[in-house]
Amino acid sequence: MPLTQDQIDEIEKSRAETQPTRRVVATALEDQLYRAVPILDHGFVRVIDYMGDDNAVVQAARVSYGRGTRKVSQDAGLIRYLMRHRHTTPFEMCEIKFHIKLPIFVARQWIRHRTANVNEYSARYSILDREFYIPDQAQLASQSTANHQGRGAVLQGAEAQEVLDILRSDSTQVYDHYAHMLNEDAEGNPVDADRSGLARELARMNLSLNFYTQWYWKTNLHNLMHFLSLRADPHAQYEIRVYADAMIDMMRAWVPLTTDAFEEYRLGGVHLSRTALDIVRRMLAGEQVSQESSGLSAREWREMMGALGRE
Amino acid sequence: MPLTQDQIDEIEKSRAETQPTRRVVATALEDQLYRAVPILDHGFVRVIDYMGDDNAVVQAARVSYGRGTRKVSQDAGLIRYLMRHRHTTPFEMCEIKFHIKLPIFVARQWIRHRTANVNEYSARYSILDREFYIPDQAQLASQSTANHQGRGAVLQGAEAQEVLDILRSDSTQVYDHYAHMLNEDAEGNPVDADRSGLARELARMNLSLNFYTQWYWKTNLHNLMHFLSLRADPHAQYEIRVYADAMIDMMRAWVPLTTDAFEEYRLGGVHLSRTALDIVRRMLAGEQVSQESSGLSAREWREMMGALGRE
Amino acid sequence: MPLTQDQIDEIEKSRAETQPTRRVVATALEDQLYRAVPILDHGFVRVIDYMGDDNAVVQAARVSYGRGTRKVSQDAGLIRYLMRHRHTTPFEMCEIKFHIKLPIFVARQWIRHRTANVNEYSARYSILDREFYIPDQAQLASQSTANHQGRGAVLQGAEAQEVLDILRSDSTQVYDHYAHMLNEDAEGNPVDADRSGLARELARMNLSLNFYTQWYWKTNLHNLMHFLSLRADPHAQYEIRVYADAMIDMMRAWVPLTTDAFEEYRLGGVHLSRTALDIVRRMLAGEQVSQESSGLSAREWREMMGALGRE
Amino acid sequence: MPLTQDQIDEIEKSRAETQPTRRVVATALEDQLYRAVPILDHGFVRVIDYMGDDNAVVQAARVSYGRGTRKVSQDAGLIRYLMRHRHTTPFEMCEIKFHIKLPIFVARQWIRHRTANVNEYSARYSILDREFYIPDQAQLASQSTANHQGRGAVLQGAEAQEVLDILRSDSTQVYDHYAHMLNEDAEGNPVDADRSGLARELARMNLSLNFYTQWYWKTNLHNLMHFLSLRADPHAQYEIRVYADAMIDMMRAWVPLTTDAFEEYRLGGVHLSRTALDIVRRMLAGEQVSQESSGLSAREWREMMGALGRE
Repeated sequence: MPLTQDQIDEIEKSRAETQPTRRVVATALEDQLYRAVPILDHGFVRVIDYMGDDNAVVQAARVSYGRGTRKVSQDAGLIRYLMRHRHTTPFEMCEIKFHIKLPIFVARQWIRHRTANVNEYSARYSILDREFYIPDQAQLASQSTANHQGRGAVLQGAEAQEVLDILRSDSTQVYDHYAHMLNEDAEGNPVDADRSGLARELARMNLSLNFYTQWYWKTNLHNLMHFLSLRADPHAQYEIRVYADAMIDMMRAWVPLTTDAFEEYRLGGVHLSRTALDIVRRMLAGEQVSQESSGLSAREWREMMGALGRE
Repeated sequence: MPLTQDQIDEIEKSRAETQPTRRVVATALEDQLYRAVPILDHGFVRVIDYMGDDNAVVQAARVSYGRGTRKVSQDAGLIRYLMRHRHTTPFEMCEIKFHIKLPIFVARQWIRHRTANVNEYSARYSILDREFYIPDQAQLASQSTANHQGRGAVLQGAEAQEVLDILRSDSTQVYDHYAHMLNEDAEGNPVDADRSGLARELARMNLSLNFYTQWYWKTNLHNLMHFLSLRADPHAQYEIRVYADAMIDMMRAWVPLTTDAFEEYRLGGVHLSRTALDIVRRMLAGEQVSQESSGLSAREWREMMGALGRE
Repeated sequence: MPLTQDQIDEIEKSRAETQPTRRVVATALEDQLYRAVPILDHGFVRVIDYMGDDNAVVQAARVSYGRGTRKVSQDAGLIRYLMRHRHTTPFEMCEIKFHIKLPIFVARQWIRHRTANVNEYSARYSILDREFYIPDQAQLASQSTANHQGRGAVLQGAEAQEVLDILRSDSTQVYDHYAHMLNEDAEGNPVDADRSGLARELARMNLSLNFYTQWYWKTNLHNLMHFLSLRADPHAQYEIRVYADAMIDMMRAWVPLTTDAFEEYRLGGVHLSRTALDIVRRMLAGEQVSQESSGLSAREWREMMGALGRE
Repeated sequence: MPLTQDQIDEIEKSRAETQPTRRVVATALEDQLYRAVPILDHGFVRVIDYMGDDNAVVQAARVSYGRGTRKVSQDAGLIRYLMRHRHTTPFEMCEIKFHIKLPIFVARQWIRHRTANVNEYSARYSILDREFYIPDQAQLASQSTANHQGRGAVLQGAEAQEVLDILRSDSTQVYDHYAHMLNEDAEGNPVDADRSGLARELARMNLSLNFYTQWYWKTNLHNLMHFLSLRADPHAQYEIRVYADAMIDMMRAWVPLTTDAFEEYRLGGVHLSRTALDIVRRMLAGEQVSQESSGLSAREWREMMGALGRE
């Protein structure tokens, strides 16, 4: 369970209050607001705040004075048009803020998306909790042989068990040592009066990359879709993909029309290169095309035929 | 009056509706929401949407689970601390969206602030209105002699009148020609059936830089303060400064504690260079310092003494 | 001719000097360095400086200590892989700086690409030249009927001539009035001693959007490709497309392997939506698919069949 | 020693080659190019490439056709003016690319500066080296009592020794386990034929935050100064400050005039708040001001008096 009872109480207290607003309201997202969706063994993602909805995309595209049309079919058509033709600025007019708890090695991938605002819990200022990520056995895999980055077959039996044992015992040990070097009790007083304790900004270096951190992360709808298109992709590392998958559900509660268009034109589609497009044209014209006559490398050919369902 | 009756009606219709929300609500800003504040002769600025408030800054700085403290004095102290020590990320957690109508030459300055989202009314797609900026006579000034960019003394009498006449007649003429070349009536049909009409993306090039455009402009609180610190500055051009001044009032309704800290540490302060700091130290120690013994150029000396009230 | 003899002399003087450097050098681009390629009637684009080359992309992808491989075939393969899989960060390691002279209405489109560094010639500080864009008659087109933004048939005969006459005479007049209001001769002294002259930041508002401005524009290779993919597109306005086309030639002299990959995977390809991909699969499997049975709108169907060469 | 002999050879091989270029050349920086400056126990920073120099700042500010003035005094004056008045865009016209090896916990602070391009060595794709940061004993400090983040007194005797022992033995152990779980020898073959080995993207999570990573990091001169002003500050953590200090030396070899202005107006100066400015004015007018009569909190008063040398 990633949350303490105090934290749950704080969340429920925030949820209990409502106030009137003149702003646009995304009712389905309001239902989920503040609630944490558990991810991995100690992580979560929850929506803290949002600005705008599908209608705000439409309104911005038209630079309108009022709320614009209320006919869902027209709005859906415009949103699909904007997505198809890469008119990205109207999607930038919606904003969402998440609170996310995640292992540090996942945070390191995540932060490479620069077009977001971030406030991370500071381990210079505060003490990290004893919480570290141990994968499910089903997620313990060997290095992929097809792909230089990625996972292959799942580890079995003794090897899997040994990995889990190592991860757990090393994590426990580095945290024990971290706490020992800090030499602080819950009130910030020395545990051992003979030692000064090591500064937090130094002690933290003993923790391993599977320890959890947390941050507030805020981005606009366009950049969110860019993030999700890369991180919900099958090639993304499992430990970040599970966050992206949960966030797509939240996005659907927030902007359902945009989510439909996103799945149609971004997540679900495929990009054909110039050569691949030419091959498809030749195949549609009835020509038999082989990898050798295609102009594609074996790898690109395999990728293209996979996308076209021709394996 | 910058708005038509239809536009006013749309705005008042939007204002009439409220819905409950679990999000933080900035009550004083809700009072102003959607209403246009007139700027210059045909421009305006109005707030369309916002996310967060002073409390959200505090909450983000603490990466908290609930709404954080409700003691205004503690929040004010933390916000002042963040502003003083340039901890900018918590301010990035608040977002605001404006609808702004402004002359094109002002828009050209404004857009140089890149860290914002913008949707501009498209003159490729739509026809611009017959609205252009004519300065008040009190704003017609000669080139500054002290400063290579900026204004000096106000023009008087016949010269001022001639400038106003030129601006008005040229603006009227270029718009008449724009409309003539377009050859479209209000329904988009040809005015003159013998002519095809010129494409909008071409005809617009005949309009002058004092014509009004409009856009949705969205930014976070940190970037807003950066914009305001440059554009509410006395060295900014008058025609952009009037927008910035109005936006500071809106900011105060939204985040009063942050606005106080902004005025204390950013707008109202002064930056001393290494040499200027040394001079102040020497003066406080009782030394008589002259420009010659200061190590500053005549210009920097004058600027510093002005800031220190020693002219 | 967009350049004065003085400007040409300055350029040739810069070109005459070479110095040794340990940095990577793109020889084919060095040949073109500083030289202006004329665009439209008074515009140009020229490369002022650059950092990196194809090899620098490879080197960055490998975070290598030396210059990496020198086998072109390996580098080409890696660059194609990076482009295909959207690994964009290595392309961000190359940078290029242009000097561009362009009409203001083109500059207004251009500046919407925010991920670049820009220094524009200041009309608050300096006086603009008497240079304005008049389209070739072949570029004077009516509004497109198929597309809400864009051009249709070329204007003919008297209508075309009238448009050219209007553009030329209005441009001449607004510049004459601009110069009159400024009241400055070439040395900055008053032309007419009885008038103070209007400040430059105000007088400029009388100029129309076809006047030329100029700027230094610097961006990295990734963002350059994004710009070019949008602005060299057939849907882009002609007056910006001609700049993009010239810049692709410069890019080829700089990073030929990257340019090949860019044309293969970005410029020359096509994106199929989820539904379009499904249709292609069905067609390849021998099914007859019509627009009605496709699930696509008439417009999307037309676009897709066009891309597939099935019109 | 942070580099292997192979790496040193690659660097020296790159240094041995020069080619002629028409671009501006910063001779003093060329002398240092590619060479690694050691930082901490296994880290380094080295310059890989650069674009522009002081003269390029001047050239951009003037949007000039040639190389602009060659009088150093004029260039220095303009650069000081630009720095003093926050005209930041000309500084954005210079670019620099570093190769940096640094502990992961330092990399986590560093990456929060978003306005840079980064290519990090991938631990999904490659195996990290057995290199971890162990502080000098002189850097082992207790938590600051004056400041919620930062260091206080240096640890002594047995406590310091115990910390060093813990850091060293835990780092050794987690790396041994990392290598064991990977089960790969130098050629990528299994060490132990009975085990599949754990995927790299998973095994890395067992490493602690003091392990070294490396990246290419590229930024423009304006953003570099922003980074350095925050990270060369006495409040920055020691382990990032040593990198910033070395980079200021490199910056001086590259753009000496800009570095002078940076030290005068940014590093060496102080910002006075509105209230602090008022106090300085009162003190200069001969008034005795105490903390009680100042309107400042005790802490701000102390900070201000420290800056003014009045402690």
